[in-house]
Amino acid sequence: MVTSLFPPELETRATALIAAATARGQRIATAESCTGGLVAGLLTEIAGSSAVLERGFVTYSNHAKAELLGVPKDTLLQHGAVSEPVVRAMAEGALSRSRAHVAVAVTGIAGPGGGSADKPVGLVHFALAREGQPTLHLERRFGDLGRGAVRLATVDQALSLLEQAIAAPLLA
Amino acid sequence: MVTSLFPPELETRATALIAAATARGQRIATAESCTGGLVAGLLTEIAGSSAVLERGFVTYSNHAKAELLGVPKDTLLQHGAVSEPVVRAMAEGALSRSRAHVAVAVTGIAGPGGGSADKPVGLVHFALAREGQPTLHLERRFGDLGRGAVRLATVDQALSLLEQAIAAPLLA
Repeated sequence: MVTSLFPPELETRATALIAAATARGQRIATAESCTGGLVAGLLTEIAGSSAVLERGFVTYSNHAKAELLGVPKDTLLQHGAVSEPVVRAMAEGALSRSRAHVAVAVTGIAGPGGGSADKPVGLVHFALAREGQPTLHLERRFGDLGRGAVRLATVDQALSLLEQAIAAPLLA
Repeated sequence: MVTSLFPPELETRATALIAAATARGQRIATAESCTGGLVAGLLTEIAGSSAVLERGFVTYSNHAKAELLGVPKDTLLQHGAVSEPVVRAMAEGALSRSRAHVAVAVTGIAGPGGGSADKPVGLVHFALAREGQPTLHLERRFGDLGRGAVRLATVDQALSLLEQAIAAPLLA
């Protein structure tokens, strides 16, 4: 019997996150490049997630990052799609262009191609934007684990950021 | 070793679809409600999909369907989010608000809650919009298979529609 595509541990954590967000009235938006919708896909495995996952943006192309999330084209050109400035702009764009209280964004190099000495396969940038709070940034280098494993590690880390955001005391 | 979250058969078909779409220069957009990003998530499992999956919309809320895809609020109110007019508007909105040649949309009731006599758990509406061609609509009733299985069956059917669209002879 199919219960979920995702590892049980991730689903258990997602269930707790959806419950906590529901209790706090916090809605979530996602902005995904390398995971291509899997962060939203995990959250929506959970019954009742419709109260929490307000919308998701799968911005695989640079056009989509610019047009859907308002990432400045200059930022994309200057820093590349896998960079701190771009992921920050993605999270802030998802927050401002949704009815969510918290937005998480990911952009990275899942491989097998596309890596360089500077930006190897497995490099992923994360950002978390919240109403009235500074945007958080995180860089992870997962290594060349294989495309599926890099994507799954990225989902796991994005979930951790959301857990921190939802569980953290709300600032007045 | 993690290779993919998805069943191997779906991944094999997605690999062929990405290859065919790449060869024909066809870009794809997705608009997902009940699958919450999994259709885009499957396509982006495939290396090289960045040339094909132009963007994806995870429109879980009615606000998102209206604001991101231009689904008329009257249509949502009159027919409900899980209906033929809404899924048609989702697909056409995804096509017109992207740089894709083909857009697939899904909206359904994955369960376990949310079903009614008229719209039972497992009911899913699909639409496929293509440049210069009439939008296709399909209704499936998968039954109450469980949330994960309904979502996976929906991904499978959406993939079939994309296969038909990409493989079909292009009209002049």
